[in-house]
Amino acid sequence: MSKSIFYHAGCPVCVSAEQDIIDLVGSANVEVVNIGEDKSRIPEAEAAGVKSVPALVTPNGNALHINFGASMADVKG
Amino acid sequence: MSKSIFYHAGCPVCVSAEQDIIDLVGSANVEVVNIGEDKSRIPEAEAAGVKSVPALVTPNGNALHINFGASMADVKG
Repeated sequence: MSKSIFYHAGCPVCVSAEQDIIDLVGSANVEVVNIGEDKSRIPEAEAAGVKSVPALVTPNGNALHINFGASMADVKG
Repeated sequence: MSKSIFYHAGCPVCVSAEQDIIDLVGSANVEVVNIGEDKSRIPEAEAAGVKSVPALVTPNGNALHINFGASMADVKG
């Protein structure tokens, strides 16, 4: 199974959602990317359709926005 | 592992998210409830913190709102 990618920016909503997603999907099946710290990954996240964080991009390329922590504009600062 | 519960109301956003969640979590690990059709389950969803659908309530009781299909007010009609 391909990995999902969980994009977040360290916000409290993000951290809570990250733990839930890892519990549900399994840590082996998800790559966690902090785009607040690693801004070089922001274009890739936006290309995948990520509008806000936390978000999970599934192996088939769908962006699932989970709750709402911060918009991409907020992450870019 | 306890089951998660995926609440939806039959909207296109809901159906797409449902397939993604089942792919990620496994159909054996999630109960799917259409609260648009089965309105008797709305109070239980609201008690779990569901504000909009589609939403996934995890085994530990967290409500994850996934993208945005419809508010609970819309579902109640």
